[in-house]
Amino acid sequence: MEYRVEKDTMGEVKVPADKYWGAQTERSRNNFKIGPEASMPLEIVHGFAYLKKAAAYTNCELGVLAEEKRDLIAQVCDEIIAGKLDDQFPLVIWQTGSGTQSNMNTNEVIANRAHVLAGNKLGEGEKTLAPNDDVNKSQSSNDTFPTGMHIAIYKRIVETTVPGVKHLRDILDQKAKDFKDIVKIGRTHLMDATPLTLGQEFSGYVAQLDHGLKALENTMPHLSEIALGGTAVGTGINTPKGYSELVAKKIAEFTGLPFITAENKFEALAAHDALVETHGALKQIAVSINKIANDIRMMASGPRSGIGEIIIPANEPGSSIMPGKVNPTQAEAITMVAAQVMGNDVAVTVGGMQGHYELNVYKPMMAANLLQSARLIGEACVSFADNCAVGIEPNHARIDELVNNSLMLVTALNTKIGYYKAAEIAGNAHEKGITLKESALALGHLTSEEYDEWVDPKKMTGDQ
Amino acid sequence: MEYRVEKDTMGEVKVPADKYWGAQTERSRNNFKIGPEASMPLEIVHGFAYLKKAAAYTNCELGVLAEEKRDLIAQVCDEIIAGKLDDQFPLVIWQTGSGTQSNMNTNEVIANRAHVLAGNKLGEGEKTLAPNDDVNKSQSSNDTFPTGMHIAIYKRIVETTVPGVKHLRDILDQKAKDFKDIVKIGRTHLMDATPLTLGQEFSGYVAQLDHGLKALENTMPHLSEIALGGTAVGTGINTPKGYSELVAKKIAEFTGLPFITAENKFEALAAHDALVETHGALKQIAVSINKIANDIRMMASGPRSGIGEIIIPANEPGSSIMPGKVNPTQAEAITMVAAQVMGNDVAVTVGGMQGHYELNVYKPMMAANLLQSARLIGEACVSFADNCAVGIEPNHARIDELVNNSLMLVTALNTKIGYYKAAEIAGNAHEKGITLKESALALGHLTSEEYDEWVDPKKMTGDQ
Amino acid sequence: MEYRVEKDTMGEVKVPADKYWGAQTERSRNNFKIGPEASMPLEIVHGFAYLKKAAAYTNCELGVLAEEKRDLIAQVCDEIIAGKLDDQFPLVIWQTGSGTQSNMNTNEVIANRAHVLAGNKLGEGEKTLAPNDDVNKSQSSNDTFPTGMHIAIYKRIVETTVPGVKHLRDILDQKAKDFKDIVKIGRTHLMDATPLTLGQEFSGYVAQLDHGLKALENTMPHLSEIALGGTAVGTGINTPKGYSELVAKKIAEFTGLPFITAENKFEALAAHDALVETHGALKQIAVSINKIANDIRMMASGPRSGIGEIIIPANEPGSSIMPGKVNPTQAEAITMVAAQVMGNDVAVTVGGMQGHYELNVYKPMMAANLLQSARLIGEACVSFADNCAVGIEPNHARIDELVNNSLMLVTALNTKIGYYKAAEIAGNAHEKGITLKESALALGHLTSEEYDEWVDPKKMTGDQ
Amino acid sequence: MEYRVEKDTMGEVKVPADKYWGAQTERSRNNFKIGPEASMPLEIVHGFAYLKKAAAYTNCELGVLAEEKRDLIAQVCDEIIAGKLDDQFPLVIWQTGSGTQSNMNTNEVIANRAHVLAGNKLGEGEKTLAPNDDVNKSQSSNDTFPTGMHIAIYKRIVETTVPGVKHLRDILDQKAKDFKDIVKIGRTHLMDATPLTLGQEFSGYVAQLDHGLKALENTMPHLSEIALGGTAVGTGINTPKGYSELVAKKIAEFTGLPFITAENKFEALAAHDALVETHGALKQIAVSINKIANDIRMMASGPRSGIGEIIIPANEPGSSIMPGKVNPTQAEAITMVAAQVMGNDVAVTVGGMQGHYELNVYKPMMAANLLQSARLIGEACVSFADNCAVGIEPNHARIDELVNNSLMLVTALNTKIGYYKAAEIAGNAHEKGITLKESALALGHLTSEEYDEWVDPKKMTGDQ
Repeated sequence: MEYRVEKDTMGEVKVPADKYWGAQTERSRNNFKIGPEASMPLEIVHGFAYLKKAAAYTNCELGVLAEEKRDLIAQVCDEIIAGKLDDQFPLVIWQTGSGTQSNMNTNEVIANRAHVLAGNKLGEGEKTLAPNDDVNKSQSSNDTFPTGMHIAIYKRIVETTVPGVKHLRDILDQKAKDFKDIVKIGRTHLMDATPLTLGQEFSGYVAQLDHGLKALENTMPHLSEIALGGTAVGTGINTPKGYSELVAKKIAEFTGLPFITAENKFEALAAHDALVETHGALKQIAVSINKIANDIRMMASGPRSGIGEIIIPANEPGSSIMPGKVNPTQAEAITMVAAQVMGNDVAVTVGGMQGHYELNVYKPMMAANLLQSARLIGEACVSFADNCAVGIEPNHARIDELVNNSLMLVTALNTKIGYYKAAEIAGNAHEKGITLKESALALGHLTSEEYDEWVDPKKMTGDQ
Repeated sequence: MEYRVEKDTMGEVKVPADKYWGAQTERSRNNFKIGPEASMPLEIVHGFAYLKKAAAYTNCELGVLAEEKRDLIAQVCDEIIAGKLDDQFPLVIWQTGSGTQSNMNTNEVIANRAHVLAGNKLGEGEKTLAPNDDVNKSQSSNDTFPTGMHIAIYKRIVETTVPGVKHLRDILDQKAKDFKDIVKIGRTHLMDATPLTLGQEFSGYVAQLDHGLKALENTMPHLSEIALGGTAVGTGINTPKGYSELVAKKIAEFTGLPFITAENKFEALAAHDALVETHGALKQIAVSINKIANDIRMMASGPRSGIGEIIIPANEPGSSIMPGKVNPTQAEAITMVAAQVMGNDVAVTVGGMQGHYELNVYKPMMAANLLQSARLIGEACVSFADNCAVGIEPNHARIDELVNNSLMLVTALNTKIGYYKAAEIAGNAHEKGITLKESALALGHLTSEEYDEWVDPKKMTGDQ
Repeated sequence: MEYRVEKDTMGEVKVPADKYWGAQTERSRNNFKIGPEASMPLEIVHGFAYLKKAAAYTNCELGVLAEEKRDLIAQVCDEIIAGKLDDQFPLVIWQTGSGTQSNMNTNEVIANRAHVLAGNKLGEGEKTLAPNDDVNKSQSSNDTFPTGMHIAIYKRIVETTVPGVKHLRDILDQKAKDFKDIVKIGRTHLMDATPLTLGQEFSGYVAQLDHGLKALENTMPHLSEIALGGTAVGTGINTPKGYSELVAKKIAEFTGLPFITAENKFEALAAHDALVETHGALKQIAVSINKIANDIRMMASGPRSGIGEIIIPANEPGSSIMPGKVNPTQAEAITMVAAQVMGNDVAVTVGGMQGHYELNVYKPMMAANLLQSARLIGEACVSFADNCAVGIEPNHARIDELVNNSLMLVTALNTKIGYYKAAEIAGNAHEKGITLKESALALGHLTSEEYDEWVDPKKMTGDQ
Repeated sequence: MEYRVEKDTMGEVKVPADKYWGAQTERSRNNFKIGPEASMPLEIVHGFAYLKKAAAYTNCELGVLAEEKRDLIAQVCDEIIAGKLDDQFPLVIWQTGSGTQSNMNTNEVIANRAHVLAGNKLGEGEKTLAPNDDVNKSQSSNDTFPTGMHIAIYKRIVETTVPGVKHLRDILDQKAKDFKDIVKIGRTHLMDATPLTLGQEFSGYVAQLDHGLKALENTMPHLSEIALGGTAVGTGINTPKGYSELVAKKIAEFTGLPFITAENKFEALAAHDALVETHGALKQIAVSINKIANDIRMMASGPRSGIGEIIIPANEPGSSIMPGKVNPTQAEAITMVAAQVMGNDVAVTVGGMQGHYELNVYKPMMAANLLQSARLIGEACVSFADNCAVGIEPNHARIDELVNNSLMLVTALNTKIGYYKAAEIAGNAHEKGITLKESALALGHLTSEEYDEWVDPKKMTGDQ
């Protein structure tokens, strides 16, 4: 491979001749061979591009950066955002915990790419831009990395998580409406209980997701606070007056998202409770989808020897050995996602609890977990919605059979004949293997007419 | 021990002669010998008393319960709330997952105690109240237990957690103000960085707790939704019209807390995402207090061979073998609490994810974890605030020594002479073991006057 | 309340006149009002008594403690072990993270009780024993607390966890044998699959618990290593020559358990990986019992509208509103325990990861979680075994009905006619709602005789 | 893009013309757009190749597969193992929880590639091999996927984790030896304590890793048990006699690793406690490395305003804004890995606890987490060892300064003058800011000669 020589304050480093990155990026590549290359999420790289551009504009507006430099920086940032330079970011999550090397990767790529855009040859001539003094002007890794991760996560949630969850919510809501008159047996403790409608059951799922979306939304204001302007330790050293507010405004403008400058920069660098908070809401949604998907696969179980109250789409052959088998594979994918998110929550918690003095150095790990959870939830909800939920059909015959069989219809008699007599009727029916009505009449607790009037599954669903 | 005979739908059971509980409580005692006796939190028992009283009033107002019965029930409930019957609740957390047996424990104690209050002898004569038909009227375990746990948790948070965290927050805020002019070295990656004030450092802690309190507050509306009125499966079977709204109003009135009826009762029985949500916020606070307490014990480390920038109160001899040792014991207690809360969060998550069909049967375990976390956080914050934080004093001499020594003051030169030359000055000083100023002058990058003007720790804190 | 005055190196403290504890215990009571009083597990208190007695014997044998002092100390320790002084240990888990105050609580109680046993009046006269110089001789909190917790946990596991899990394992094993000829449908993905015997199903549970017990056993050697003799930081300062080995031998003798002195005392004080390791195995068992209990409650679901393949004992009325309902309450209790243990595992992990320099200061919290998990698992297994598993009965009619219905019997045809044709038969039967045999014949892929010979559920279980 | 048409039991599907995969793989690609493409770990793909080859050999040896078919299958498997077909496995983790589609991906690729190797053109002519009937002969996804994941994980642990951890252990052990005579201050509760040697401190780290390696080793026998031969539900339906044992022997032979057939196939399909067990040991190692790396970065903190007892290599510029800053970046990378592994442990636990009946359907997620943890730990240990630990040097001057200052040297006097008087000396020195010796003499508790003899840091380390 061909190399060129780049240098930083520690000396010279050989870097691949055709890459825009510089000495510090290359050092990091060599020093952190942990896990697959380039594991640092691209969302963060793109988040960095937004903030570098915003910083350049702000620095220029505040009189500390020349317009030509600003424009060059902005031009490269636009290329990064467009995904044109994705292969210039080879670093891993498992580097310095402040993400310094990814910040420098960005600074170096911007400086070198700008050098080329300005008509020079890579690695030749006086550098058009200095990575630290120009591209990183008024910045530190300590405030850029948290800003980049907030941008990346906020965008991912708004673009993938929320629409994905909403889409599933809407499809389930439609089902709740479609199924509102289908009376079925309820189950508590997995055991037969009093009836409800299939629509009511689905309405509970919708309520779960509504609450989850609300909980997620509640965390967004904290996430919208960005650290930029805090620089090294939160004091804002080496920033021009007015920088924090203005750069946040620029970021909000460039991203179209409501970012604001963090009121307290010390918190924004030293703690990432905002990430803990947001991931907590993602975990709550994971809990909800686990419940929902579990119910659906249990209700769809069978086809002949399970519950079989609903029918879900058959998307693929289910077994490599059992011919004709169909499985609730979408439920499996989404519950695996739920388990992953629950695990990620602990990783984020463990990272979040360990800020030391002015800096939390678990940034890349925390951000990567957030981004994974946010994406997986959103995409799994869409997959589950479109490949499973939307196609759910009730198995009317089976639903009727099961509800009519149930001994728990006896509950309707509590208010008529009291809990004790009602229990006697159910117990007698269970023991003798007869119907509830047969048992009721045999015990003489009520008449046939009374039974028919009082024990009506439909009425028991509250839909009177 | 003396016994009397009680019975339920399954038959007769011997119960201790002097206890108010009945057959089902006794069955549960015998069937669930898991962990210490009476581990079901008393907060839940008291929560039940509020709802039983509210249900009695509502049932009466809606015409399905006689006034005398209502008054008897209410009278016992008031005794329970006052803590007079605490020894009548012997059951454990590890019982049926719906808490049915604790609901019945309450029903039985109320019925039997009412029997005595009505002038009868325990275990003799016709029962004044029927545990199921009167005390449990218009109720099911499935809606009472979640209601009881929401009441218990909401109260605990309002009465212990929030005031405890606020108290710590206020003390730290006072310290932030007191320390606002104390310039000290900042540390990132545990390494010397640019200076900030001790007050700025503490302001970050305050910001963390403010965000935590906000996050907790955000979860309270979900927690304020109560399941009562859903009865067996969420349909509200066996409740009179208008019951849900009215009983929620009564509970709000009796507790003085803003409880409302859950919009969707199916969610309120089958999922406990509200608990997952609230515990998520408690976990976030645990993350914050861990960071804060860690910082404080590191800054207080020494007395002679550590950091030693602050002095914390000496509350007890620190060592059984090392005479004169003083330790940051309050920081240890509160970080142990933080670790416990992080563990509890997983227990709550695992319970929450496993609702099946119409019921989540992890209720007692989830509620117990919430209650423990809420109490521990609140009380640990008070203990830490009053026995440690309030007494924190700066060690001025040490603070000055450390900040003045630091090579990172060089950062102020970036905007004057550029990052590279500044790095050269710092590196040279480090290598030769000389001061920054000596190094700067030796390298000829600036004059003595320039150095003194530009490198001023106080200015570097942004307090210009 | 009446008080007497006790003092320590910090000065005088008032303590309740009738209690044996002294100044440091009382300071701790006042300084750590976090959670319920006396939450420090008694197992640890008793563990301390073993080690204090062993230390006294060892000190005497090595010539640094008088025989009379040894005997007095031993006499009080025996009282503590016998549970006679349980009310003398009022401290909480949430104290100093080294457990220093619980060590001093023990030292003080032993000294004061010995004073009384020696014929003196509590609080009067020259102290017979000095808490630090005599009772704590050759010891530090830093090595006694870890030793006390290892003793406590080891004992709990040997006395409660292992026998409890084994008991459940044996009962399930008996069921596996009893059920070995009962052919039933298998289920994968919750969907109908090829048949197996109910005994085979239960044999899987037995294998899980056997592996779990083995895993737990694997962790015991690390747990058997005790820190005693390391004193303050692991170097063994202030111990006589030969102390570590001898004191471990005495502890082994007094407890009847195979304790040995830790090869590396620095690890034994600064890290509690032994606890992390042991709790990992407890968590594995929790995972196993969750799977087992889940299966059992699903198979027992019904009675009329669920799976209903097995019948579990009806131990109590299942519902306060649904008369005659019976629930899998033991499965619920044990799966709640499983969830708790999974949460505790994270608390232990978070505590374990944070040792600093020569000491881990999460000891009481870690130990308390271990003890809770060990006890809950053991007792829940016994409860589940005796109140549920032992009474499990197959529902033969239902089992036969479900296995004979299944379309997945078609799998037996793969090796005869190939996967594709077999899939066609199953698909056709499913679509038309006919039996597998009807479908097979209709499609002409085999003869009636071939079908009957090849498709035999019994043979498909491998039991040919 | 060009397509060809492939079909399965559900009908025709268009697949990219140049890919070897078939209909089921393509269905999965379309149905599971969750997360990045091809996230199914390649280690599992390669693990599958070993088992497919072993199955072909076994089937042939047992007379159910022709030699030519065996050889074709084996030839493709060798290509897969050699990494030549990596781009033929586009599926994601978040698919069916049994990994059926990845099994079919393998079957299809083998069949189609074999078709080409046999001289045919892809997609043309009679298929040389049938994916289900030939490649998957005597197999099911339900036993192949767990076998593939056990192979993959076992290999990864043996090839990456164990050597990585051992490498770090050896380097730390060398340091322990190199530093055995360097007396330094000990710290408990982060506070000054009695001295020990730097070598003793490092020996504790070595002991932690030794215990961790032992714990990991303990889990390997369970992991060496493979499910292959259990087929659909554990009964081994459609396998020839002797298959299980023989195929395990072949796998052991081909991999060079001690795989054996699982004694109980029901456990091996329905539960993945072996993965829970192994990950538990990985988590323990994560706990250990977190402690070690934390200590090292705290001891290296400074350079002028921290602890500064050791010097770690400066591998890269530490800050984009603070010139000359050097940070403990390797410690940060490895502690981020530790946090991730702790999170992964919960994901594995949550997956492991949810087996249903005959199958656990969290396989791909569980395996992916294991593989990530195993790799990250191994590689992070190597990175930390080679880029940090190996270069650790003591800062003698600083070490001497701190140990000689310490008041806790007073502990040596306990056995000479008693704890109380010793405490008085320390307290007096602290209060007056004088040396311990000055205080001792001022209080008159001992002579200057006694002090010098008794208070000797070197002796206090036990190295007398």
